[in-house]
Amino acid sequence: MSPPRLFVDADLAEDLVFDLADGQAHYLGTVLRRAAGDAVALFNGRHGEWEGQIAAIGKGRCRVRLRRRLRAQEAESPLHLVFAPVKRARIDYLVEKATELGVASLTPVATERTVVERINRERLRAHAVEAAEQSERLTVPVLHEPRGLPALLADWPAGRPLFLCDESGAAPGIGTVLAGFAPPPAGAAMLTGPEGGFTDSELDALTKLPFVKPVGLGPRVLRADTAALAALAVFQALAGDWRQARLRRAPAALSPHR
Amino acid sequence: MSPPRLFVDADLAEDLVFDLADGQAHYLGTVLRRAAGDAVALFNGRHGEWEGQIAAIGKGRCRVRLRRRLRAQEAESPLHLVFAPVKRARIDYLVEKATELGVASLTPVATERTVVERINRERLRAHAVEAAEQSERLTVPVLHEPRGLPALLADWPAGRPLFLCDESGAAPGIGTVLAGFAPPPAGAAMLTGPEGGFTDSELDALTKLPFVKPVGLGPRVLRADTAALAALAVFQALAGDWRQARLRRAPAALSPHR
Repeated sequence: MSPPRLFVDADLAEDLVFDLADGQAHYLGTVLRRAAGDAVALFNGRHGEWEGQIAAIGKGRCRVRLRRRLRAQEAESPLHLVFAPVKRARIDYLVEKATELGVASLTPVATERTVVERINRERLRAHAVEAAEQSERLTVPVLHEPRGLPALLADWPAGRPLFLCDESGAAPGIGTVLAGFAPPPAGAAMLTGPEGGFTDSELDALTKLPFVKPVGLGPRVLRADTAALAALAVFQALAGDWRQARLRRAPAALSPHR
Repeated sequence: MSPPRLFVDADLAEDLVFDLADGQAHYLGTVLRRAAGDAVALFNGRHGEWEGQIAAIGKGRCRVRLRRRLRAQEAESPLHLVFAPVKRARIDYLVEKATELGVASLTPVATERTVVERINRERLRAHAVEAAEQSERLTVPVLHEPRGLPALLADWPAGRPLFLCDESGAAPGIGTVLAGFAPPPAGAAMLTGPEGGFTDSELDALTKLPFVKPVGLGPRVLRADTAALAALAVFQALAGDWRQARLRRAPAALSPHR
């Protein structure tokens, strides 16, 4: 039985002892039925991944002691997603998939045709945490406050490419644009529009900006969430961390979900 | 208001008149509130895409007359997906996304760790039809009967590459493998495993077959549905129909969903 992998806020270092949050204690004790002495894997986005041992577990309480570091913290994949939010089930799925695909941050952006008004950041954060736990990431992507497109573009750092997933059909294919592309240290971002697409005036404004690079996603019309996931996957395969193929998997005894 | 785009079984040719299925008639009349004289776009996977006009519409009935062909039928993208089925919401999503990404066929495959036993092909077919309508495809992907992995491999045509999405971390990256790859006329297929992955004995058997080409999908552990979508997107970008970037969009007056 592989140890569950949990994201925590606490610092992680040898022999530290601390209590897990109520929800995680409930999950370990009541859902997974783990007992004192059982192992867990813990990461906090700062100190790598650690093997811990359950020291005590009871009704909604769980104390763990850290034993040894399994993986050192590593540099984040320098890839970001800026996306016009989509409706409930699709945005949950999008956050999950973008986390698995390795985005460092997610920024919801309001465009002229965006119809989703409220973003439940707490719910989305929970999906990102769960996907990070499952995918063996060492971090949880940052989920930024929603912004308006004009404000976002006005603040955009000039040296950071913003790849516009362009449904107008005029852009060169994403494979052509990204072949051999080396992301700058600050990283690159994918920008996807709402279900209705960007308006002509938004597209005009975007394509005039020197850091905006339009990319095409083929001859079919993709849903907004499909476009985001497809663009992230192609980026990782051609310019991102999929080029170093090796899985950063924890040692076999601790490998979860297999 | 853009005309709705519908997949039909009927033959399509100039001046043909026929009745739509009950569900489509209800959708047009009651949901979309279309009336006689309004336009629809129709495709059947064989005769391209046609503009039709509603001749009569009433309670669950709708008669259309075809007026002119908008797009000729085109060759299918020679890309297929063979996948170990995942649970309900995820399999629906997978079929939708794979359709948007242009697969010609979907084949569920039972592996040693596959836990999903029943496939509701009718429900999956409905998702594929809807995604084809929305994505402006001219076809609906073929949804094959589920098969066992050994039988599928025993029948596999030798000239057709089967790209194994390999979570073991040993395979070269998918971007490296697919750069410059030209699919044979019979097409290529992506193969993805169940949530628990392929077993070691399945992987041994797979990698001994000359048509199986293992590809890696980066350093994180991907869910089965994420792996399938990511692999399809990278294939289309590097070796598939995304290389010809132009959207095959219907004339502006008929462009739906924008």
